Amino acid sequence: MAGGVGSRFWPMSTPECPKQFIDVLGVGKTLLQLTVDRFAGCVPQSNIWVVTSASYFGNVKEQLPFVADDHILLEPCMRNTAPCIAYVTWKIRKLCPDAVMVVSAADHIVVDTAEFKRVAKQSLDFVAHHNNILTLGMIPNRPETGYGYIKSVEKFDGNPIRIAEFKEKPDHDTAVKYIEEGNYYWNAGIFFWNMATITKALRDNAPDIADVFDSVNDDLFTTREQEVIDRIYPNCRNISIDYAVMEKADDALVLPASFGWSDLGTWGSLHTQLNHDDCDNSFVGGEIRFIESTNCIVRMPEGKSVVIQGLDGYIVAENDNKLLICRLEDEQRIKEFSSKLDKKPH
Amino acid sequence: MAGGVGSRFWPMSTPECPKQFIDVLGVGKTLLQLTVDRFAGCVPQSNIWVVTSASYFGNVKEQLPFVADDHILLEPCMRNTAPCIAYVTWKIRKLCPDAVMVVSAADHIVVDTAEFKRVAKQSLDFVAHHNNILTLGMIPNRPETGYGYIKSVEKFDGNPIRIAEFKEKPDHDTAVKYIEEGNYYWNAGIFFWNMATITKALRDNAPDIADVFDSVNDDLFTTREQEVIDRIYPNCRNISIDYAVMEKADDALVLPASFGWSDLGTWGSLHTQLNHDDCDNSFVGGEIRFIESTNCIVRMPEGKSVVIQGLDGYIVAENDNKLLICRLEDEQRIKEFSSKLDKKPH
Repeated sequence: MAGGVGSRFWPMSTPECPKQFIDVLGVGKTLLQLTVDRFAGCVPQSNIWVVTSASYFGNVKEQLPFVADDHILLEPCMRNTAPCIAYVTWKIRKLCPDAVMVVSAADHIVVDTAEFKRVAKQSLDFVAHHNNILTLGMIPNRPETGYGYIKSVEKFDGNPIRIAEFKEKPDHDTAVKYIEEGNYYWNAGIFFWNMATITKALRDNAPDIADVFDSVNDDLFTTREQEVIDRIYPNCRNISIDYAVMEKADDALVLPASFGWSDLGTWGSLHTQLNHDDCDNSFVGGEIRFIESTNCIVRMPEGKSVVIQGLDGYIVAENDNKLLICRLEDEQRIKEFSSKLDKKPH
Repeated sequence: MAGGVGSRFWPMSTPECPKQFIDVLGVGKTLLQLTVDRFAGCVPQSNIWVVTSASYFGNVKEQLPFVADDHILLEPCMRNTAPCIAYVTWKIRKLCPDAVMVVSAADHIVVDTAEFKRVAKQSLDFVAHHNNILTLGMIPNRPETGYGYIKSVEKFDGNPIRIAEFKEKPDHDTAVKYIEEGNYYWNAGIFFWNMATITKALRDNAPDIADVFDSVNDDLFTTREQEVIDRIYPNCRNISIDYAVMEKADDALVLPASFGWSDLGTWGSLHTQLNHDDCDNSFVGGEIRFIESTNCIVRMPEGKSVVIQGLDGYIVAENDNKLLICRLEDEQRIKEFSSKLDKKPH
């Protein structure tokens, strides 16, 4: 899933080139490329599907040249993850009704890719043999308030366990309690299932969306497909797979795992993933000198030289001739800040 | 005089292109061009002489294409203003021994150019008929501690008056007293004299420097000139015209004037010259949005879009792919800040 606009990462992420298409970590690969890379050995390259906005087709082709055009599904508009997953599910099941499938966002990061592969293989194998929806739950290492949580029925014993409940992003005290209780995991939005399971789950829990794709099933893999999708996709309900399916499904399981995952949802979450100097400053790109500065995150284009003096707790980010300087604690307002310059809808 | 390196204005001003060659005010002309422009009607273009560093010849030719090559005097090294003025004096007096001359820095600004012209004409006329050194004294409108002061003997009556004493940059309380006493003026370093007067003043007060140029007088306006200057110029004492001549001369006069002058010595002085928004922010270049920010000065390249949130009292300046963010109150340390990136001597 590579359709997000990443507005909270402005100006690094722009509507023209959102964060999944950017080398956010400064490692020489974009988040999309890193996402595909971490499935190497688990999923053949020829089985990679990308669902994205029609306007990002070029970005995907450029960054993943080995992905065939007909494996890049183009949403004419954003309808959240449920319609996105339904679209690719109806495509894959038409080609291969007994396929197993893993769904991942293209803009998350994983630090321990070896452990990720181990967990992905275990999960793919599991859903090949079980008709359960399986989601990964990140074993929390801190009372994070920026993620939703999944509560499990049982304690983790190395195998998928039953989901008791999905929890919205908690306040700090609640998050501390979740950690103490030990059977709460971060909802990472990484799903595994076989075709029969997800098709049934969509039909049972989001029949309106299933009906939309049933109605165009004959058009898939024809020259009419895009035209038809462009017409019917906007009619889909704008809803996440979590609300549409996961929270309603009786047989959903969670596999707890720990591989240094982050959704990189904000500058602050990127800040926690980067190396820090002695004063808790981090940066990506450029040549940065911090003087009397603490707890800053700086993101600059390559070749840029920067001196930052006397700043505590700021984001300094430049991209595409746009520069943002703002308090890290006010990062939730970045969309507002960017709109002061740019009147285009984000 | 266009030889300064403007290190306190980094990164707008760089050793390769110091501030006299930059459109500091964002008006479409560089400080050098504005300086020449304000003499229009007082000094024929063909009588303009520029003394600068050898490395800035190209900058001067590009910005003042009408100035002949032999009116651009190239210092092989920096020796402050006394040798600079002696050099151009010896040149002009050889061509025209009864010339009158005005000396000005190329990196100052004047807001009221009409009044400047009136004062310049009065001064040129005065030194055409009097053998005095004449310097302009800026009538102070605030107890500025960043300038030296000239104390006059008499009160100002519209004509040049005798100088009692030169005063170094004062502390705030002293500056307040100067303003109250009413016969103190900012030393703007704008001099008027005829050839006989400045030649005699240099011979009397800085005979070592006069001797250097006497020794090469025969080489001026020959093909040997630059080679000879390159050899002897480094031997000149490194001293300002103020110390070498002005403070020693008995017959120096000051003409008080008021035309919105600033030496633009620092970011702070530029900040005071620019238009401010309601929160005392100012900027040159770019498209700047201030949010919850006060008393900031921002200098950006054209075409750059910037959002600044939550900053109070900062300089944010970019030039030549270098970005500086630092406290305005720490601007005296900019040379130190820039040296963290660039090991070249400034």
